[in-house]
Order: sequence, then C-alpha cells, then structure tokens
Amino acid sequence: MIPRYSRPEMTAIWSQETKFRIWFEIEAHATDALAELGVVPAEAARTVWEKGGPAVFDVERIDEIERVTKHDVIAFLTHLSEIVGPEARFVHQGMTSSDVLDTCFNVQLVRATDLLLKDMDGLLAAIERRAFEYKDSVCIGRSHGIHAEPVTFGLKMAEAYAEFARCRTRLVHARDEIATCAISGAVGTFANIDPRVEEHVAEKLGLKPEPVSTQVIPRDRHAMYFATLGVIASSVERLAIEIRHLQRTEVLEAEEYFSPGQKGSSAMPHKRNPVLTENLTGLARMVRAFAFPAMENVALWHERDISHSSVERMIGPDATVTLDFALARLTGVVDKLLVYPERMVANMDRLGGLVHSQRILLALTQRGVSREDAYRLVQRNAMKVWDSYQRAGAADVDFLTELLADEEVRAALSEEEIREKFDLGYHTKHVDTIFRRVFGRS
Amino acid sequence: MIPRYSRPEMTAIWSQETKFRIWFEIEAHATDALAELGVVPAEAARTVWEKGGPAVFDVERIDEIERVTKHDVIAFLTHLSEIVGPEARFVHQGMTSSDVLDTCFNVQLVRATDLLLKDMDGLLAAIERRAFEYKDSVCIGRSHGIHAEPVTFGLKMAEAYAEFARCRTRLVHARDEIATCAISGAVGTFANIDPRVEEHVAEKLGLKPEPVSTQVIPRDRHAMYFATLGVIASSVERLAIEIRHLQRTEVLEAEEYFSPGQKGSSAMPHKRNPVLTENLTGLARMVRAFAFPAMENVALWHERDISHSSVERMIGPDATVTLDFALARLTGVVDKLLVYPERMVANMDRLGGLVHSQRILLALTQRGVSREDAYRLVQRNAMKVWDSYQRAGAADVDFLTELLADEEVRAALSEEEIREKFDLGYHTKHVDTIFRRVFGRS
Amino acid sequence: MIPRYSRPEMTAIWSQETKFRIWFEIEAHATDALAELGVVPAEAARTVWEKGGPAVFDVERIDEIERVTKHDVIAFLTHLSEIVGPEARFVHQGMTSSDVLDTCFNVQLVRATDLLLKDMDGLLAAIERRAFEYKDSVCIGRSHGIHAEPVTFGLKMAEAYAEFARCRTRLVHARDEIATCAISGAVGTFANIDPRVEEHVAEKLGLKPEPVSTQVIPRDRHAMYFATLGVIASSVERLAIEIRHLQRTEVLEAEEYFSPGQKGSSAMPHKRNPVLTENLTGLARMVRAFAFPAMENVALWHERDISHSSVERMIGPDATVTLDFALARLTGVVDKLLVYPERMVANMDRLGGLVHSQRILLALTQRGVSREDAYRLVQRNAMKVWDSYQRAGAADVDFLTELLADEEVRAALSEEEIREKFDLGYHTKHVDTIFRRVFGRS
Amino acid sequence: MIPRYSRPEMTAIWSQETKFRIWFEIEAHATDALAELGVVPAEAARTVWEKGGPAVFDVERIDEIERVTKHDVIAFLTHLSEIVGPEARFVHQGMTSSDVLDTCFNVQLVRATDLLLKDMDGLLAAIERRAFEYKDSVCIGRSHGIHAEPVTFGLKMAEAYAEFARCRTRLVHARDEIATCAISGAVGTFANIDPRVEEHVAEKLGLKPEPVSTQVIPRDRHAMYFATLGVIASSVERLAIEIRHLQRTEVLEAEEYFSPGQKGSSAMPHKRNPVLTENLTGLARMVRAFAFPAMENVALWHERDISHSSVERMIGPDATVTLDFALARLTGVVDKLLVYPERMVANMDRLGGLVHSQRILLALTQRGVSREDAYRLVQRNAMKVWDSYQRAGAADVDFLTELLADEEVRAALSEEEIREKFDLGYHTKHVDTIFRRVFGRS
Repeated sequence: MIPRYSRPEMTAIWSQETKFRIWFEIEAHATDALAELGVVPAEAARTVWEKGGPAVFDVERIDEIERVTKHDVIAFLTHLSEIVGPEARFVHQGMTSSDVLDTCFNVQLVRATDLLLKDMDGLLAAIERRAFEYKDSVCIGRSHGIHAEPVTFGLKMAEAYAEFARCRTRLVHARDEIATCAISGAVGTFANIDPRVEEHVAEKLGLKPEPVSTQVIPRDRHAMYFATLGVIASSVERLAIEIRHLQRTEVLEAEEYFSPGQKGSSAMPHKRNPVLTENLTGLARMVRAFAFPAMENVALWHERDISHSSVERMIGPDATVTLDFALARLTGVVDKLLVYPERMVANMDRLGGLVHSQRILLALTQRGVSREDAYRLVQRNAMKVWDSYQRAGAADVDFLTELLADEEVRAALSEEEIREKFDLGYHTKHVDTIFRRVFGRS
Repeated sequence: MIPRYSRPEMTAIWSQETKFRIWFEIEAHATDALAELGVVPAEAARTVWEKGGPAVFDVERIDEIERVTKHDVIAFLTHLSEIVGPEARFVHQGMTSSDVLDTCFNVQLVRATDLLLKDMDGLLAAIERRAFEYKDSVCIGRSHGIHAEPVTFGLKMAEAYAEFARCRTRLVHARDEIATCAISGAVGTFANIDPRVEEHVAEKLGLKPEPVSTQVIPRDRHAMYFATLGVIASSVERLAIEIRHLQRTEVLEAEEYFSPGQKGSSAMPHKRNPVLTENLTGLARMVRAFAFPAMENVALWHERDISHSSVERMIGPDATVTLDFALARLTGVVDKLLVYPERMVANMDRLGGLVHSQRILLALTQRGVSREDAYRLVQRNAMKVWDSYQRAGAADVDFLTELLADEEVRAALSEEEIREKFDLGYHTKHVDTIFRRVFGRS
Repeated sequence: MIPRYSRPEMTAIWSQETKFRIWFEIEAHATDALAELGVVPAEAARTVWEKGGPAVFDVERIDEIERVTKHDVIAFLTHLSEIVGPEARFVHQGMTSSDVLDTCFNVQLVRATDLLLKDMDGLLAAIERRAFEYKDSVCIGRSHGIHAEPVTFGLKMAEAYAEFARCRTRLVHARDEIATCAISGAVGTFANIDPRVEEHVAEKLGLKPEPVSTQVIPRDRHAMYFATLGVIASSVERLAIEIRHLQRTEVLEAEEYFSPGQKGSSAMPHKRNPVLTENLTGLARMVRAFAFPAMENVALWHERDISHSSVERMIGPDATVTLDFALARLTGVVDKLLVYPERMVANMDRLGGLVHSQRILLALTQRGVSREDAYRLVQRNAMKVWDSYQRAGAADVDFLTELLADEEVRAALSEEEIREKFDLGYHTKHVDTIFRRVFGRS
Repeated sequence: MIPRYSRPEMTAIWSQETKFRIWFEIEAHATDALAELGVVPAEAARTVWEKGGPAVFDVERIDEIERVTKHDVIAFLTHLSEIVGPEARFVHQGMTSSDVLDTCFNVQLVRATDLLLKDMDGLLAAIERRAFEYKDSVCIGRSHGIHAEPVTFGLKMAEAYAEFARCRTRLVHARDEIATCAISGAVGTFANIDPRVEEHVAEKLGLKPEPVSTQVIPRDRHAMYFATLGVIASSVERLAIEIRHLQRTEVLEAEEYFSPGQKGSSAMPHKRNPVLTENLTGLARMVRAFAFPAMENVALWHERDISHSSVERMIGPDATVTLDFALARLTGVVDKLLVYPERMVANMDRLGGLVHSQRILLALTQRGVSREDAYRLVQRNAMKVWDSYQRAGAADVDFLTELLADEEVRAALSEEEIREKFDLGYHTKHVDTIFRRVFGRS
C-alpha cells in the first residue's frame, strides 16, 4: 500500500483509528449481550456506549501502553478503561483477543468489499455507456494478433462488461465468505462465553456467526477472498492489455485520454504512451500475487497459529487498496478513452478487402466450383493484394477490383453477388442479439 | 497427471476417446439445430447420429490425419466423414474449431467437477461419521502448538466438516463458472451461424450459452475455476497437516490406518509414518500452483490468442485428476483414521492439570483476591508442576493436589470449588450447540 | 509432461528404465567402496557389476514386486538379487532408501540440465547468427508500444543473446546447486555407513558429496533449481512475445516460418498465426508455476518428511521436459524466422519522419532559438504529419518536406543541416560497440 | 513494508531522500564524464558537485514541481537547477529518465543486498556458535515426524548453517545480477550519449555497464534477484518451522527466549508461544510471493513498457525490508534460543529404548539368526514397550531390560553385546566429520 496507488476512502478502512473504532463496537455490542444475559450489569454496558461512543481513541497512547504490555488488545482495553472508567472491567469478559481481531478484520474486509462493489458498478456503467456509443463501430477482430473477421468496438466493450459483471458476482460471493463474526473464546468452545453474545454482535455488525471457530475464523474463507481479488485483477489486466494493443502506434484505434493542452504542448505528437493501462498491468500482477500467501495461510496448526497475521497485515490493506485504485483508474480510462472509428475502418481497409476472402471462397463452392478451383481463384487474387500489403503495410491493390476483373470468378459469380460478400452488415447482424444477452437491451 | 496419483474415472474424462466423443456430440447436436433451421438437410443430421452415434472413433487414425492436416478438428471431421459418408459435409457449417474445443473443454470440466462433488460428499460423510463418533472425546486444544484449553476430537472434525462444506459450495460456484457453451463462429459474432444453434447445443449438453464469446470462451471463468481448486487443495492440506501433527511420536493421538498385519510385521512398532497425509500435503502444493497460470491465461490478446491452450492441456487434467485423487485419499484417511482418546487424555494430563490454571485465577479474583495476589498464588503452584513437566515431559507433581494443599488458596476457595474448576464438562458444554450449527443435529 | 510438448532425449532421462539404471550404478559404486573398506567381500562387488552391468531391469517385474512390498527400493533390490544372485545381499548395506532416491533424482536433474545447456547453446548460436545477419537493419524502437527512436533488428537479437547468455550462466549455477550426492544413512549421521562410501559414489557419478544431509538432500537446492528454470522460462516468454508483436498484422516485421507450400495453399494469405510463440508463452507460464511448489518443499519437518516427493514426481519431469521443448522450439523459431527489413523501414516511414522531431528540436535550440519557439516550430509541422497518420495509418504528409518549406525553420537551419537530422546513421553509430560488448566481435 | 516489520537502516535505502541523493550522484558523475569528453564545460561539472554535493534535496519541493510537470525526473532536475543554478542545464544531456531510474534502482538493490549479506553473516555466526555449543547434545532424529535414529542438536544447527551458507552464495550471485548501470539514452543505442559516460558512472558507483540495454535494464536480472530472495525466505521458513516443532508442548526441546521476568509474571507457565518463528513463517510467505510478479515483469513489450514500475515500487522495498527484518529476527531467535538437552534425552527415552531395535535386529541376523526369527524376537519385546508408550506417552517398560530377560535373544547375544547396541556413541561418531565439512573445523 503506497500512497501513489491508494485512494483515501479505502485507505481509511485500514487506519488505526478505524480499527480501534471497530474494536470498540465489537466490545460494546458484546457487553450489551452480556448485560442482557445478566453476566454483567446493564449499567456497565450503557456506560461503555455513553463514554466510549463519542470518544476518539488515542492511537499514540495505545501504542505507548502496548510498548509495556506487548499486547495490542490489552493496550486498547487499558486505554478504554481510561475513557470509560471502572465499568470498563466488565468489557471483554470471557472473550479472547482473536474474537476482537478476527471479527474486526472481517468487518474491514466487508467494508473494503463494499467499496470494491461500488467501484465495480462505476466501471460497469462506464463500459456500458461506451458499448452503446460504439455498438456499431466496425473494427477488425483479431485472433493471434492477426486480422480475422470484423467485429464492432461495442462488442469489445460488451465482452468486457460481461466479464466484469461476472467479477461483480464473484465479489459478492467473496464478501459472503468473509462476512462472519466469531466471539467464541480461547479455543472456540464458548467455555467462557455464551454463544448468544456472538449472535448479538454478528447481527449488530451485519455479519453471520461463524458456525465453528477455533479461536480464529478459518482461513479458507480469506484464501477464497484473496483468490477472487486475484481473478478480478486478471480481468483488469485483460482490458488494460486490450487498450495497450489498440493504442500502439501501428494500430491506434483508441488512446488513453489526453487533454487538448497536453496534445498542444508536445513536439512529438506520436509519443502518447498508454501509461495508465501499463500501470494497471503491473498492479494486477501484485493483487494476483497476494492470492498465494493467502492460500498458504489456510493450514494453520491445530486450533491456530499466528503465521497468518503478518501476511494479513500486509495483504489485507495492500490487496484491497490496490484493487480499489486499479478499478477506479480503469473506470477513468474507459470513461474517457479516445476511440477512433475511422481509424478502425482504415486499418481493416489496409488489407485491401482480404478479410472477405473466406466468404468469396464459400460462395464459389456453393456455386459448384470445386474446392481446389475455388481456392486457386481466390488465392491468385488474394496474393496480389497481400504482396502489396506485406511490402508496405497498406495494400495498393484492391481485392474486390481484382475479383471483379477475374473472368473465371465472374463465370461463377455476378458483380452483385461479389459485392454482396463485401458487406460488413453480414458480420454485425447479431450485435443486437448479443447486446440483449449482455445488457438486457440493445 | 501421473498414474500413481490418478483414478480411472477422472482420467477417463481426459482421454482422447472421451474428447472425440464429446466433439461428436457437439457437432451432431449443432447439425440437428442447423437442420431445424433449414440450413442443412434433416436427413443429413439423422445420418450423422445414426452412423456416428454407435461408432468408435479411431484415435490413431485421427492422429494420422492430423499429421497431414496439422489441425486436430479438421482431422476429426475427416475421420467423421469416413464413418458418416458424404452427409458429413453438412457438419460443422459456420462453426469454428474453438466452438468445438472450448465447449468440449467445459464439458470435461463440468464432468470432472461432478466427480469432485461426489468425492466431496464422500469426504463430508466420512468426516461427519467420525465427528459424531468422537463428539465428546476430550483432547487438548492447542494454539501456537502449545496446550491451551480442552476441545473434543469431534469438534476438530466439525471444523473440518464446516470447511469442506464451504469447499463444496465453492465447487458448485466453480462449476457454474465453466458450464457454458459457445457456438458463435470465427470471432464470436454469429456471422456464419445462427445463435439458436448455440442455444440448442447448450441445452442438450446441460450448459448455458456463453452470453458473448470472442471465438473463445473468456478465460476469467477458468481462472476462477482453477483458483477455487487451489483453495480446496489448501483445505486438504490443512486437514492433512492436522493429522500429521496428531501422529507425531510425541503426540500420537491419531494415526493413519495400518492393518494388523502391517503392525505385526514390524520390528520398529513406533515407525508408522503418516505418509498418506504427507503425500496429500505435496499434492495440495501442486493443485494450488496450477491456479497461477490459469490466472495468467485471462489476458488473451484481442479476440483470442492460443497461449492458454498449452497451459490447459496440462492443468485441465492435472488439477482435476490430482484433486480427485487427493479427496479420495483424504476420505480414506479420515474414514479409517485410528483415534486414541485415552492418549488424548493422557497428553492433557501430562501437564498435571495446568490447563485449568486460568479458571483458578479467575475464581480467586472473583472471590475478591487482588489480581496480583491471585497471580502469585496460582503461579507458585503452577511452577512446581511446570518444572517437573519441563524436565521430563510428564509432570510428577499434580496441580490440583498442590492447590488443595496451599493454605492461602484454600482461604479463598473450598476444596469443592477448586475441584469444580478441574471439570472438563465446563469446556464441552457447548459442543452440542456447535454440532447443531454445523450438522443441523447434535 | 505430455507427449505433444516433449522431446525423446529429455523424456528418456525420466523413464523407469533410466531410473533403475541409475539406482543400479549408485548401489554398485557403493558396494565397490564398501568392498574397498572391507565391509563386504570384493568378490561380491565384482559380481554385482558383472551381472547387473549388462542386465536390463524389468520394470514390470519390479512393479509386481512393489505391489507386494509396497516399497520401491526394496522391490528393485529384490529384482537385483534375481539377477545378481546371493551376492546381492551385500548391496545397500548401511544405506537408506533416500540415499538412492535423492542421489538418483540429482543425477537425473544434472543430466536434464546438461541437455538444457545444450539447448541453450543451440539457441544462442541461432540468435547470434540472426543478430549479425540483421545487425544494420534499421527498425523503429518502441517504448510503451509507441514509436520511439530507431534501433536495428540486430540489436534486438543482441539483447536476446545477452539475456540468454545470462540464463546460461544461471543454469550452470543451478546445476551446481543440485549436483550433490548423499549416502549418509537413516538420518544423515553415517551411523551405519562410512562417509568414504559417499565420497566414492559422488566422484564416480560426477557429483559432490552433500556436506550435511538429513536422510534427504536439503530442498533449498531444488527450490533454487526450479526457480532458475522459472526465470529462464520468463525470458523465453519475453522473446516469444516480441515475435508475436512483430508478426501482428499491422506490424508484420517478422513472421514465424511457413513453407512456400503452406503459403501457396492458403486463400487467406494474411492469416498466418504466430502459434509457436503463443504456445511458448503458455509453456513459460507452466515452467514458472512449478517454481512455487518447489519453494514450498523447502520446509520439510525435522530430518525429513515426504511431502516433497509427490511434487517432485510431477515437476522433475514436467519442468525440465517442458523447458527443453520450449528452448528447442524457440531455437527453431529464431533460426527460421522470416524477417522483413523493408517492412521495418516502411513502418517507420509511415509516420512521415516524425521520429526525427526530437533532433530537429534540439538543433533549433542549439542554434539559439528559444525553447518555446523551437517547440512551436516543430509542433506546427509535426501536427500536419501526425493528423494525416492518425486518420489513415500512413502519413501522406512528409515531415522533412514540411520543415524545408517552413521559413522560420529555415532561418535557423540550412537544408543540409535539416537533412542531416534525418540520417539514421546517427542512431546506429554505436551498434558495433554494443555488438562487441555482447558477442566480443562486431 | 510496514513499520512493524521494518528496520531503519534498510528502510532508509528506500527513502525519497536516498533516492534523490543517488539520482544526484548518477547525474553528477555523468556530467563529469561529459565534461571529460568535451561535451559540456568542465566548470559546469565542478559546479554541480560543489553546489549539489552538500545540498539536501527538498522532497516536498520536488513533489510540488512534479504535480505540475507530471514527471519525476524532470521535477528533480528542476529542483537541482534551483540549487546549482544555470550550470544545471548541462546535466542529463543525452540521457533518458530510465538511465537515472534504473541505475538508481540497482544501486538501491545493491545496497539492500549488502545489508542482507551482513544480516546473513550475523545469522551464520549465531548458528555456528549454537552448533558448537550443542555439538554433542543427542536428540532424536525424526523422519515423518516419527522418532527415527539419534542425531545431535549441533547437527541440526550444522544443517541450518550449511543451508544459509548456500543462501549467502546465492545472494552474492543475486547481487551480481543487479549490479549494473545503464546510461544509454532513449532506446539504448547511445545515439545521444557516448558509451564512455556509462562506463564512468558504472565505475564510480561500483557497478558494471549493462552490455546492452533497451532504455531499461533487462528485467530477467530482477526476476532472478527476487526469486533468490524467495528461496532464502523458504530457508528462513524451514528453520522457523523446526523451532516451532521443537517448542510444541509435547516436544519442548527448545524455546524462543523469554526473560526471567516474563516467566515470573505468568500464571500459565506452559503457555509460551513461539510467536517469533510463527511470524517468520508468515513473512517468508510474503517474500516468496514477490518472486512471482518479478518474473512476470520480464516480458516487457519491445524496447520497454512501464508495467514493471508499479510492481517494483512495491516489491523493491517490501521484499528487501521484510527479508532484512526476518533475517535479523531469526538471528535473535537462534542466538537466544533456550535449548533443553535433558529434555531431548527424556523424549528419546520415553520410547523405552525402542530407537535401538534396528541395531538389535541386525546383530541377531549377523549372529546367524534367520531374518524371520530375528524379527519375531525383536518384535515381541518391542511391542511390550510400544504398547505402554502408546497408552500414556511414556513407556514404563524398558526395551533393554526386556531383551536381557529374553532367553532366545540371549542365546544369540551376550549382555555386553546387547548393551553395546544401546550406545548412543554409535550414532554420533561422525559428527566431527560432518562439522569439518560444514565449518572447516570440529
């Protein structure tokens, strides 16, 4: 988590202030439940809220106490007693530190996920807008980086939309995974605390009680959570790489936004680098990498060991802050992406109409020309076009013209028939179908 | 995928024979739909099923053709025409190879997942049985590998059950991720094939149509799938490591099964190694590792590149076969695990009752003894016990006896009160609650 | 390890036959040393070689025995005694199975590495040849995928050469890591076997004795080995991706080889896909992934556990076979790569000479034109060129012509001076220097 | 990089202040070389050192400028000109930002590595001291977590020493990998700068010139660097896990240090948790994870893209700071480790001498007892011992006593012979040999 790749709202979730505030809420809700059960005085629970509720916990003071006690939760409770007074002794009864730490970590992850879901909604909205904007802008589809058949830029956006819609669903599942609360005591047996305390705290915090914990909340939940973030990061990478490809000089079908001012100031107008999407590519690598230690955290020894803790102190903030930043940055890139439909057509046309060779071949065979002959006819015209393209990167021979001038071809196909095979509408006729599938409208 | 760690049913899913059979089904269903739409003769579709349905595809023959055509799907179609005759020319119309390859891969993954779900059910059943069998068998709970407070062996099993029940849910989600079908042509635009063909094939194969494909089915689906297997493998590792810990000589609270014969033949009765769970630990590392290239497969270039293919040829079989084997092996280990409840008690008792020191401390303070005094009283008795334990690994001093003989302690607590604090029932009183949460019964 | 991505010489190293042959050699050399030390009769050692040396070990027979003994080394020794006769009882004295297994694994890795080194030499030779062939073929250098300044294709090859030369050095280090032998008995203490046996076997097998082993050879060695393969795979990926970029339709500065026949048969001459380098990209992901479980194998418990074994049964063959295949494939790609120097020039020229804008800017300021004015002058000419490029992908306005016609520019720079700034030789003047650094000659 | 797991000396290497200081040195040395070559005035170079040398670069001021220029190196150069005055215009001539950034990153990595090497020396010294201290302290060797045959605690330390000595060598190799300097201009062709500038700067900074760069220093170097840190982290994990095992309650052969004060204050003397080594286990997971994005950084596009940058901004500091902290923490743990030799003996003895069963078996067969009979004899005595161990965790039957009382055994072996087989010296006789191999002395 470095400032350069952080946004304040997400960073705030991981601040010491937020952490202590959540600790307070867990303790105060638990005290309420203990009071309800008659374990501690109702008066005590009320006092905790009254004095602790409006209080600002002093991070430095808590650190100071921790340097003596070498225990963070005890340091917090000591500070709490400074604020609440003697009633504070009724707080935390029968609980273990992990009850507070693990539940707090999950609250933080839930809040982080809610932000990520908001990010995702923003991204989806941006993609959807651009998808409809360019629904019918034809561009060449490329397999293996080689021109294949036409698609539209809107379709590319529809694919991205469908992918991030899946990511959104995954994020909802991931949120469910970690939205649990454990207040179960030393080794999770509720020996010292009634399970109803857990139920109460869970409800108040919008969590579900962890069915069975072992002092800690089981880490397969977190492994699944961070693995999901890793998959989402991979989808971020995919769209980023698509844009980087579209922006490369020879393609230039789209560009990351630059202000007219930026443009005006440069003596090298060609040197506009896709630095945002390159940056996203790198950030995706990081978020993905964090999935690994999260998986290694699962196999804690017996009822718990604390090896997961140092990992989570790092990846908890790092993965969520980085992904939040990445989603927001990607949203901005998509939202303001400069799209060049004319250039898309120009790029396709530079191959002189070769993209239609398959349709001509098919038409010839359907007219009874043998497969070998059809190949020969198409090929001898295609090669003229290709040779001129290959030399200079733009064909100065036109496939349609050549075909129309080829007597053998014309013997099988009329001019009208040949021209019809060059109709781009053939390729885009189901764009609406696909849009309805993806967006529910077209 | 090596024979040593493979089971035939899963391996069969990945055989060439199965693959060609699925290819046939995709092609034949598609031909049905094409016939229905009037694109090809109904007679042709019928013939394909009649001749191809009962046929056995000759893998070697297809390989032979592929060596010439250098294209696997064309080789298959050529072989199919050898079987079906001239009607075969109506097969595959408007389709692209990826339509067949990607849909087939997903069919294989779905079938593999169905096997994994069956494995998981078997594992859950075994764990549940052992959980109830040892519901009340008290053993020491350990945090940081250090004796903490009592749990029961049944609770350990309940934890494992809850974890694998979560894994099962994840597997269902993962299955949904990859249960899609794409028959959308060259770059996914349906230019050459009606979307209704895709819908028909999907329905027949128990899949959903891929809302938008780009020649290939998007690989974020597969990334999520293999990441999920990686998380499940991590849970396998966790239970395996728990058992390895329980079997180590100094603990010996459980052992992997060995037949009486095995036992009888050894002159080194102590040397029974947890080789199955060690093996599972290694296999888990492999399944987890496969999640990574799957995530790297997401960012294919433009409408597709084929970099994912070599990865999937490896991890498709390797991840599912290995996890299938691992789940089955783990089920066997759990099912036949030798559990030693007496030894669990003995291990706990070797600390001379120190495990109850916390309760005594609490009782003293509740009786008005100051915190410092309570500590001092408990400590002076505890240290005698501990010193004897630390020296030899089994205390020859008993904490209860010492406490009862300590006049200062007795001034605050009666013998009955002290003895009550040594009651294990205190720790197990909520086992039923937890079982009801996990199993819905207790 | 799947046949499609395997080569026979590397695969043979991992065959059962090879394994048993190495086992035999380890045992026979050890018996020699034991005889030399007087522990076993010299006659026995001779007999072992005489009968076992020419023997072919029967893999099926050994498997059959293993199904009974459930122990692979014992099964082998039993089979050996069937071949050697009663003298076989002197074999393996004081040794433990791991002595054989671990030393054999290292022998296999050493042999595999020797093959990889040979592969690497072949790759380096191919790259070097192409580097000199195209030492002076100017092409545009691209940063961020955007045209930057000119380089030569030979320089690109020189970079690849330097990178793989580093990889070769790493491979030599990696070979050193695993070229060790352990014959140290049950827990590595030499309690039952003299250290001189280890020294003898090591020398005979071209290994170094492992200074201290713990039944097993420590796995940090193997972690380093497989991590190194992962880094090398990443370099394979880099060159593969470079070629994929150069082959994309819009760039087309190089192509994977296709035979004239291939070319002649296609009606879609533009559809030549870089499938080999895409395949290499995927294979690189796999080899890289194997580094992870190898690192997780390091932390075996105490003197050893066997969790590493299942991992190594997979990644030992998989990583080496896949990398061998990948290096050979990459060598073939480089060796036969179709390189289009004219197209390189054409691509550069499509930007109408904009690539030289920086030099003009500098020249103006050196002539005393203020930075702002120089910018303005360059920019007004550059933008005309760029606008025409951006529209259609090829500038129909020429930067040089525009500059020469710009009076303000001409006031500062003569025609000759302007033309001089368009000299590509300026950019290539140090190619020889770099070649001498990389190849030791230019 | 979080404060909790950071040490100031390593953190300082990654501060903004250090970075700008290194940038300055690179620029100033380059200016010297340019002056020497007559490209800029010698006076300018002198002024740069005179004014910039003692200056403190104002991080906030540079940030302020960067917010306008959106370019970090330009911001620095602007600030430099505020300090140096008009002579600053001669700085950076012909250089590109990456020349500064990449060379600086490598300088930082070299310095970080030098710290890590110092850490490693400290760790090796601590391990060596403990190795000799406990060279002859016999403890049970464990394979599969099961008692095998005796080793010594010193041997365990010798193994760790040999492993970290290998890690040290790897670190030296890793340092070589990244100890390079590139001052080669826009795309690495030296078009605008003489290669002798690079040579001069390299020499002054203790680096080697990068033989061929492409604007950036090739990232396979950094991949190898971070992969090496990952392997070293895995060795840290191994020793950490060894200690965690030794500290678990049932074993308790060693403990992380706790001060007498700590001990005195606890009422739960058994609850001393190996939190430092658990923490190290988690930190190792993180350092290992960073190797992955570093490998993914290798395949930059063409002459460079900037996707590596965000990764390195994170893992550069994170990996080195965390490993530095981990090595220092591990050194402290080893240095002060509480070792309990008596308990080691007690643990071994709890199996009633079973550890010697193999030697008895061998002795019987050597005396001509048939293998079956020998097994039967050993087994019937061993089982009595084992049964008593298995029940309670400490055998109350003694293997030696049983054997001596077994008439059939005695018929083959004298009392003296039997007793001799229980001699631990048999197992430790080569400890000195191993120590000489590892430490060069015994």
